[in-house]
Amino acid sequence: MLFESPAVEALVTALRKLPGVGKRSAERLALHLLSAPEEDALELSKAIQVARERVTRCDVCGNLTEQNPCAICSDDRRDAAMLCVVEQPAAVMAIEKGGSFRGRYHVLYGVLNPLEGIGPSELNLDSLLRRVDEDEIQEVIIATNTTAEGEATALYLARQFGQKGISATRIAHGVPMGGGLEYADDATLQHALEGRTPLR
Amino acid sequence: MLFESPAVEALVTALRKLPGVGKRSAERLALHLLSAPEEDALELSKAIQVARERVTRCDVCGNLTEQNPCAICSDDRRDAAMLCVVEQPAAVMAIEKGGSFRGRYHVLYGVLNPLEGIGPSELNLDSLLRRVDEDEIQEVIIATNTTAEGEATALYLARQFGQKGISATRIAHGVPMGGGLEYADDATLQHALEGRTPLR
Repeated sequence: MLFESPAVEALVTALRKLPGVGKRSAERLALHLLSAPEEDALELSKAIQVARERVTRCDVCGNLTEQNPCAICSDDRRDAAMLCVVEQPAAVMAIEKGGSFRGRYHVLYGVLNPLEGIGPSELNLDSLLRRVDEDEIQEVIIATNTTAEGEATALYLARQFGQKGISATRIAHGVPMGGGLEYADDATLQHALEGRTPLR
Repeated sequence: MLFESPAVEALVTALRKLPGVGKRSAERLALHLLSAPEEDALELSKAIQVARERVTRCDVCGNLTEQNPCAICSDDRRDAAMLCVVEQPAAVMAIEKGGSFRGRYHVLYGVLNPLEGIGPSELNLDSLLRRVDEDEIQEVIIATNTTAEGEATALYLARQFGQKGISATRIAHGVPMGGGLEYADDATLQHALEGRTPLR
């Protein structure tokens, strides 16, 4: 046990729940939090608490926000006819950084995964179908991750929207920009070849 | 700004102060803390607070502990004649994991670094010199890191102890166990050759 201290053990346990933090990293972070100036450590403790108090899910799109509806949903200059469906808030952040997408978002908070008991009702899906019914949405871009579950979820959603006469599109799969072809895996290369587009 | 939320920004700022956490990692951790079940996020917040409340520096050796003096300093079975001087509590943990050292420790909380204004009075050094004067210490093993500052601090300490007639030793520098010689840097190899020992 780390310094025979239950308090340190509790801290290591809590830190290990962070993504990408194993036993060694958790111990290193705990030691840092204990050796650092007290105000720095308590600043983090407080920041977590305040963020959890103030930041909620947007009632419309599900994205994390301090105002409700969120800044993107309340921005009239954004194209309300185009909706981009993503798995997690991190994806919204990634796409917004690019700055080229001018539509709105919907965050599912996961993907369908029957083996782990995650069905449509476990996702932020009801409000998505309601939005598609009620708003003037013309195209839904499905930007779930390119994992098996992400693909299956994309197909499931496309079928739902098809029944409502809404066009669903999937983000392109292919070779990442700036990377050598030799580093792309087989599935990516196959998709890149199948999805080839004419040069203008 | 991340979701135009000052609370999220404050969280990212606090997370970036953790060792090895850059902007990207801080954003990822912040998103996790906001998307995770609330009790998990608050568990971490609380654990930091409780650990800072309960864990203090041992009055004797400076190591982090919930009891004072710490478990190692109060353990009569440990060899009080042998003292191992380290930079940080993490080093105590690393040596204790090995389990072969049966003496006691002293944590300096840093090394001498004149360029950054860290002199003897900025370190946990007074109590070390007092221990050496008052306790029945026969050997001080200086296990500061093998950086330029760690080496300089080791020499400084050795000189101090020499004046008191206490033998100071330095941990061996050499090639790590299990590693190929071709991966060792020049300085390590030079030390390994200079520090060669007869085979028995």
